[in-house]
Amino acid sequence: MKFICSKSELLHAVNIVAKAVPSKTTMSILECILIDTSTGTIKLTANDMELGIETIAKGEVIEKGIVALNAKIFSDIIRKLPDNNVTIESDENYATVITCEKAKFKISGKPGDDFSSLPYIEKSLSISLSQFTLKEIILQTIFSISDNDSNKLMTGELFEVKENTLRVASLDGHRISIRKVELKETYPECKVIIPGKTLSEVSKILSGGNEDQVKIFFTGNHVLFEFNETKVVSRLIEGEYFKIDQMLSSDYETKLVIHKKELLSCIDRALLLIKEGEKKPVIITITDGDMALKINSSLGTMNENIDIIKEGKDLIIGFNPKFLIDALRAIDNEEVTIFLMNPKAPCFIKDENESYIYLILPVNFNTAP
Amino acid sequence: MKFICSKSELLHAVNIVAKAVPSKTTMSILECILIDTSTGTIKLTANDMELGIETIAKGEVIEKGIVALNAKIFSDIIRKLPDNNVTIESDENYATVITCEKAKFKISGKPGDDFSSLPYIEKSLSISLSQFTLKEIILQTIFSISDNDSNKLMTGELFEVKENTLRVASLDGHRISIRKVELKETYPECKVIIPGKTLSEVSKILSGGNEDQVKIFFTGNHVLFEFNETKVVSRLIEGEYFKIDQMLSSDYETKLVIHKKELLSCIDRALLLIKEGEKKPVIITITDGDMALKINSSLGTMNENIDIIKEGKDLIIGFNPKFLIDALRAIDNEEVTIFLMNPKAPCFIKDENESYIYLILPVNFNTAP
Repeated sequence: MKFICSKSELLHAVNIVAKAVPSKTTMSILECILIDTSTGTIKLTANDMELGIETIAKGEVIEKGIVALNAKIFSDIIRKLPDNNVTIESDENYATVITCEKAKFKISGKPGDDFSSLPYIEKSLSISLSQFTLKEIILQTIFSISDNDSNKLMTGELFEVKENTLRVASLDGHRISIRKVELKETYPECKVIIPGKTLSEVSKILSGGNEDQVKIFFTGNHVLFEFNETKVVSRLIEGEYFKIDQMLSSDYETKLVIHKKELLSCIDRALLLIKEGEKKPVIITITDGDMALKINSSLGTMNENIDIIKEGKDLIIGFNPKFLIDALRAIDNEEVTIFLMNPKAPCFIKDENESYIYLILPVNFNTAP
Repeated sequence: MKFICSKSELLHAVNIVAKAVPSKTTMSILECILIDTSTGTIKLTANDMELGIETIAKGEVIEKGIVALNAKIFSDIIRKLPDNNVTIESDENYATVITCEKAKFKISGKPGDDFSSLPYIEKSLSISLSQFTLKEIILQTIFSISDNDSNKLMTGELFEVKENTLRVASLDGHRISIRKVELKETYPECKVIIPGKTLSEVSKILSGGNEDQVKIFFTGNHVLFEFNETKVVSRLIEGEYFKIDQMLSSDYETKLVIHKKELLSCIDRALLLIKEGEKKPVIITITDGDMALKINSSLGTMNENIDIIKEGKDLIIGFNPKFLIDALRAIDNEEVTIFLMNPKAPCFIKDENESYIYLILPVNFNTAP
């Protein structure tokens, strides 16, 4: 096998597929990137059996062939090469020589036979949206998945297509994050649970361009993201997702409008009084026109007042400050509206047409100082 | 005690003195920053008994007094405050309230009585140089001190004043780094060993301005750096420094001139074949007009050739690549001259007037592939 490719093009491709290389594995073939020029293009693939990524690097194929190279060494070498054309050549024993200007690396490779190719995806059911939108809605919801494997469903996100809307939701038992976007076309109904890891890696690879499209194909067991020269295939999480609609409510006793950045920096400041692992609520007292925030920890206390526009009852309620911060960071608007019921009921941060809904459960607190 | 100070000014001062707060200590008073307004200025001090730093923050003293505040909490709070005036007020029990706009923090403080003030430094012997120069020569030599405490002398740097030159040297048993700068005046002879930790912290605080001066005072046991509104006092390392002049030699059999950046990026690339903790030399073959570099590790091999201008004998010699990189990074020139004797003798990288000398011992290597 032999091909020539610019360093930047090759590095870009390596960085994309490297996201499917497992950081820990006992199977050394999974630590490899497969380079396949047998069809006349330079195709790179990595696959950790849950998540597989394939992309094409533009370049000139001189001799067709296949070789698997250790992803870490290969990407380290490419990264450090001068910014020029790179020639890669493997012999019949898969010994691979990487040449760029006067630098010449020699590393050993493996045959591609043991490498698991990506599963075949039947391209029947698909939706299309902009890369920018997909990246945004992933980042705006992924923080509230659970990293605890004991409930597998919580480690993924619900992708639900209904007519011309895509709804993405995640929850971890303390909060729910929901984003809804309008699609350009109407699609048949479809509901899948995509692993959080897959979405996180996809969000990193997406260019984020508003003009660039991504196509998502769904099958019973897999999802395929297709964009630019890249394909990301992932297994789905099996099972029935939580009935989130039953957890949502539009009743409220207190409604308030607050400047988002002011609230965010206030809670962010409060956070520094909380040592790692310590659980201290931020206690919020809502009266006419004013929100008073208070935090009390072993390190000291903090008080701050923020102007609000309020309708309905006064209320004292406690929250995990981190959950409020996560939700507020995911919202772009300058002002947010918060709906509250009572100190035991969840609060809702949402906009008028519910393009986002962030539900956060309150925590118990001691009113004693 | 009560004073008002802008957030940025206070944060700047806190960041300076925080460098003398030990990361680990059993004496909780050492974890504090002492704030002293008793003389009408806002003076902040930290002192880990080896290294002490004192600086003045500009602001308005409303009530004179002294309080010691935990450095970590205090600096975290100041960092997160809005960009506005900060009011700090301590009561007779040292409870301290920090107010900025609507945010109000309350933390507990300590009396300043247990705090060790900086030692008195007799200001008789001193030199002056630009902050830029001092910062440069520290960064250009400090990498070759030893972090092994078994030989205390190696953990410091020699500062040697002779007439109108300052010579700074460090060594770790495998290499020596020497920088010489001309001072504007002639000073009496003086030779001290300053702890590496002190120099590293001083280099971080120095503004690096060419116009800004720093004054260095030497006593038998201490050194004092005075610049802007800041004083850094440190103990010296006791003992007689190594006789470095005896280790230097101007004999050579091979002399070569090489493009520095080319050599540096080549060795930098070679380094990625070396796993952490693995010791593999870069083997350099010098012939007329050409330097061939080769590295051979469990991960693969690398070869690269670089054009050189060479005088004298051909030579094959091995080096720890990291030592070459450290020295080359510390040199600003586009081209460097390297002097070699034989495969067992140290190499010297130095300029014509020896404003810098980097000595590196070679390593043994196996010529077998």
